[in-house]
Amino acid sequence: MKGHLIKTGDNPDITKERRSATFCINKMANFIHEGHENVKRREEILKYVEEHPELCDKIPVEFMTREERVERNAQKAVAMTDHADCIDGSDFFGEGMYYQTLVMGRDFHGMLLHYSMFLQCIQSQCTEEQLDKWLPLTILRGIIGTYAQTELGHGTNLKKLETTATYDPVKEEFILNSPTITAAKWWPGGLGKTCNYAIVMAQLYTNGKNRGPHPFIVQLRDLNNHMPLPGIIIGDIGPKLGVNGADNGFLLFKNYRIPRENMLMKHSKVLPNGEYIAPKHSKLGYGAMVFTRSIMIRDQAFMLSAATVIATRYSAIRRQGEIIDSKGEVQIIDYQTQQYRIFPQISRAFAFLLAASEIRDMYLNYMEKSQISSDISLLGDLHALSCGLKAIVSFETAQGIEQCRLACGGHGYSEASGLPQLYTFAVGGCTYEGENIVMLLQVAKILMKLVKNIKNGTEYLKRDSEKTSNFKDYKTASGEDIIKDFENIARNQIFLCYEKFNNTLKEFTYEEAVNRTGIEMCKATRLHVKLYLIKNFYTKLTIIEDYDVRKVVMSLWKLYAFDMLSHLSGALKYNNYMNDKQIKNIKEGIYYYLNEIRPNAVGIVDSFNMSDRELHSVLGRRDGNVYENLLEWAKQSQLNRNEVLPTFKKYFEGMMKDGRSKL
Amino acid sequence: MKGHLIKTGDNPDITKERRSATFCINKMANFIHEGHENVKRREEILKYVEEHPELCDKIPVEFMTREERVERNAQKAVAMTDHADCIDGSDFFGEGMYYQTLVMGRDFHGMLLHYSMFLQCIQSQCTEEQLDKWLPLTILRGIIGTYAQTELGHGTNLKKLETTATYDPVKEEFILNSPTITAAKWWPGGLGKTCNYAIVMAQLYTNGKNRGPHPFIVQLRDLNNHMPLPGIIIGDIGPKLGVNGADNGFLLFKNYRIPRENMLMKHSKVLPNGEYIAPKHSKLGYGAMVFTRSIMIRDQAFMLSAATVIATRYSAIRRQGEIIDSKGEVQIIDYQTQQYRIFPQISRAFAFLLAASEIRDMYLNYMEKSQISSDISLLGDLHALSCGLKAIVSFETAQGIEQCRLACGGHGYSEASGLPQLYTFAVGGCTYEGENIVMLLQVAKILMKLVKNIKNGTEYLKRDSEKTSNFKDYKTASGEDIIKDFENIARNQIFLCYEKFNNTLKEFTYEEAVNRTGIEMCKATRLHVKLYLIKNFYTKLTIIEDYDVRKVVMSLWKLYAFDMLSHLSGALKYNNYMNDKQIKNIKEGIYYYLNEIRPNAVGIVDSFNMSDRELHSVLGRRDGNVYENLLEWAKQSQLNRNEVLPTFKKYFEGMMKDGRSKL
Repeated sequence: MKGHLIKTGDNPDITKERRSATFCINKMANFIHEGHENVKRREEILKYVEEHPELCDKIPVEFMTREERVERNAQKAVAMTDHADCIDGSDFFGEGMYYQTLVMGRDFHGMLLHYSMFLQCIQSQCTEEQLDKWLPLTILRGIIGTYAQTELGHGTNLKKLETTATYDPVKEEFILNSPTITAAKWWPGGLGKTCNYAIVMAQLYTNGKNRGPHPFIVQLRDLNNHMPLPGIIIGDIGPKLGVNGADNGFLLFKNYRIPRENMLMKHSKVLPNGEYIAPKHSKLGYGAMVFTRSIMIRDQAFMLSAATVIATRYSAIRRQGEIIDSKGEVQIIDYQTQQYRIFPQISRAFAFLLAASEIRDMYLNYMEKSQISSDISLLGDLHALSCGLKAIVSFETAQGIEQCRLACGGHGYSEASGLPQLYTFAVGGCTYEGENIVMLLQVAKILMKLVKNIKNGTEYLKRDSEKTSNFKDYKTASGEDIIKDFENIARNQIFLCYEKFNNTLKEFTYEEAVNRTGIEMCKATRLHVKLYLIKNFYTKLTIIEDYDVRKVVMSLWKLYAFDMLSHLSGALKYNNYMNDKQIKNIKEGIYYYLNEIRPNAVGIVDSFNMSDRELHSVLGRRDGNVYENLLEWAKQSQLNRNEVLPTFKKYFEGMMKDGRSKL
Repeated sequence: MKGHLIKTGDNPDITKERRSATFCINKMANFIHEGHENVKRREEILKYVEEHPELCDKIPVEFMTREERVERNAQKAVAMTDHADCIDGSDFFGEGMYYQTLVMGRDFHGMLLHYSMFLQCIQSQCTEEQLDKWLPLTILRGIIGTYAQTELGHGTNLKKLETTATYDPVKEEFILNSPTITAAKWWPGGLGKTCNYAIVMAQLYTNGKNRGPHPFIVQLRDLNNHMPLPGIIIGDIGPKLGVNGADNGFLLFKNYRIPRENMLMKHSKVLPNGEYIAPKHSKLGYGAMVFTRSIMIRDQAFMLSAATVIATRYSAIRRQGEIIDSKGEVQIIDYQTQQYRIFPQISRAFAFLLAASEIRDMYLNYMEKSQISSDISLLGDLHALSCGLKAIVSFETAQGIEQCRLACGGHGYSEASGLPQLYTFAVGGCTYEGENIVMLLQVAKILMKLVKNIKNGTEYLKRDSEKTSNFKDYKTASGEDIIKDFENIARNQIFLCYEKFNNTLKEFTYEEAVNRTGIEMCKATRLHVKLYLIKNFYTKLTIIEDYDVRKVVMSLWKLYAFDMLSHLSGALKYNNYMNDKQIKNIKEGIYYYLNEIRPNAVGIVDSFNMSDRELHSVLGRRDGNVYENLLEWAKQSQLNRNEVLPTFKKYFEGMMKDGRSKL
């Protein structure tokens, strides 16, 4: 089955590309989406969404004002949850995310945190009595909640949150206050205008003592008229680079009182008399972050995939410049430089998707074990891996999308391409859920411990380096040898970093030493995570049964590996591990695999099984009929609603008359 | 004079930083802006703009809809040109650009191309009679013009433009047509709604023969009511990643007739009987592109500078995390990783500004020579340099701004930071005025010719490489030695590329060989241009008279050089030119100079002499009072105009009541 995406009326160049694929698109799609059943479900869900106009935008979101977007997203958020039965809600990594993307596009909405964080906290932080009260209300959408942690002046360092919750044993209430402007809660999704409840993290004070940050459930707005309650100052934080259909909000408290029962008391407790009972374990609720980051990795991987679909299809139908005079303009996908911009992004998308599957499985495995037998031994590894992957995947996804966008030239700059929305949405992932550099440093600290106790270290850290690389030729090099080369680089960097760190520790405190080794630490984590990506990709490709599919995925893997290695040539030559000839050969390998992938490029991106609805891109249309649809798209521009804008009468007419009168 | 930016009421952290500077901010500002007179003029122009409310926005642009932006920009464009006497219009590189930035911010407007391209073409492509007719009309703003060249399906390859202008000798008119949808003019600034005239590039047909693309002056809209004239289909091309206050447009012709006199005939002519007279020289009008690119390099350099001001000042007042427990949270500028994100961007901004000055001087020199003595011998070098610099500077500026934005964490994602506007505006420069990869390849082709005729080659290409690097230690290494190391890398890459290219030529045509060597070609140009940047920076810093200023700029240069070299460690180790120890020492040099720059960072960015108006950033405020002003800024959000949005009554109220009723 090569041709099931080919239809009459398609752009002939894209049809030609589809005919040239050497493998079965369906089989590749099954590999990418982990089975035919999932591919089928994607198509069913798509059909369901398209059959329900309340789930679809009538005009493309990019032609709306911010107010219109927020309004539209409110309507769709309600409709989406009304129709939630069309998906298997327990499969959040698969059907849930896909459904949300189809309906909401590349944007957030006011009810996102109600499900992703508010509900999560209710479930994990409530006592039994609290659960009885809040869980049904939350699930039945009787209230809309969000999660308010970060403050205007405080992000990563939770300890320093400033919002206070002071217990008053006389009235048995907590008094919430924002003692400074920097204490304003800032960023929570839906907080600005949508939500009437929030879980608020605040410094707990009982009997005059600070007990650290604790969660409280807080009503923000009147249930009847949605007005902010007295003592609550609340609003939207204003426009952002992306996600402007969401009302991220700010929140200040002025002596705002809540009942004692509104502290979530599963772990810590405050008794009526103000006595504080500390939690048995610290670091609970860790799992939620791991979950969110695991979801993010998958989401980011699909965004990068979407960008590659758009750029590859457009490059197949765009003709520009001549290589052989008599043959007319060439498809721009035939330029080596264009291939080098896009194809490594395709291979990266594969690497990220396969890592996302792996971390999802680890997460589900952990959840099962922790729930059945309270075994949380997997959490440490999972936490480290999710932090590291989150940082690498979000940064490289953003960069990759931009490369795809730039590869589409002027049209990539237009919202018609869908790429600006993808980029501005995806790049937020570098910052939220743990700022990337903070993530890299966290993992690095773990790596430093592993080196210290080398015997417990990750396998490859224990192995001795070989003196020189086995690499001979890009055509004959085995996957294992390439991975060994990569292990060698990662190990060297981690050890060099450890040495520097250890030397610094002789003079400075631990935190100071971490800071003074920060750049090397980040590098160490990056290489460690990249090694993971390359290994996991390889492991998963070698078990592909279909020969044709495996061959193509192998080409992508080789491109991925050689592209990364060629950027690390300095590290490869450390200690003369590789010589100039080997390095040069790696570069030749890149050219070779770009060429190998070329005839299959459109087929590969077709296999991501992304519909025109999901792509939301005139350039990435399945049918390749880009130009006529760009014109149709442009006609919808806000400015085209009137043939003549008011600016003529108001400003230009007088100016020009005046100018002409002087002639 | 260290403290002239310090005022009562400033954030104490930023005052502390200003006090720690080791050099005179004014002297540094004079160096950056090439003399005290220019700094003074900046301040005078700023004062003028701020005294004229018609030149200033009442509400920040980010809170406006697209229609409001376009309207506002129309008003400001007229006002800006009304007030043009407040600047020295002949100093476009200096006062002109600055004035425009102050008034328009990071956006284009409908009259931009009237001045930058329409006027230029009138001046350079008209006969004497045509000049008499069109020049006063243009200068007096009796009409508003734009320049329509690119088409929906055609960008770089001018030869393939599809719009036709067919001469009708009976009526002595040209008939303009857009034979296909891909022939639609697409992108020209102001074309959508503002302009009533355009210079249109179209394939000229006379006596049945195609004479290639030629320029025609075409009326688009009725002078009285601004309606499109019959045969003209015109409109806005829709929203973009940035510049949404501008109405970039599309244009289609249907048998639209213009008089013969409307072909711009300075170079080619069509006589009344249809006889075609070819131009004497080809490639005229080349100078305009060089001018635009030279301006762009300066503009981009200032945008990167602005991003560094914002990120540096914010990093000085933001406190987060603890290094020493008792000392409270640290300024994030104290993190090595934060310094590594921002300081190399500062050094890059210096490199780009100094290159921009150099290319401006070359351009002015060329203009003088070409006008006085028709000597255009400088144009070749100037063209190559402007192409190469444009590609490197625009890409690294965009990347640098994003690094600065990411370094500001969550607040960097908010439009309040000003960084989203800076990025989305600046990154457009990678695509317009010559797509970057196309630029890199053009320069590479020139480099290949230089190698072939090595004796005419740029100086450094002629020199023999030394076998090994002289580099011993980052503290003692001379500028000349560092430059030599860089020359060695650039030369190697250019020669390796040439070898590959030459081998490919044995089997393939020239264009095919260029394509098959594309990636190596781009690398060769990048290194060639980076070498230029590093050399030019060094040359200009060594003549700084003030010792303290020179010392600081030298630190920036060293950081710039070592940062680049450390990313090229593979190339440095080619042929064992450098060893592991030298490479390691270069990295140590980076840490050393980050540390050196740290106490001067705020002082350095202060020296860019950018006012709060120019920066348009809550995070980058001179006074460092970020948080209270973030809150004030947010209160202006569109969504905060009503305490309760209509979404409550329309969607959420019913949903929640329904939910609660089920309890």
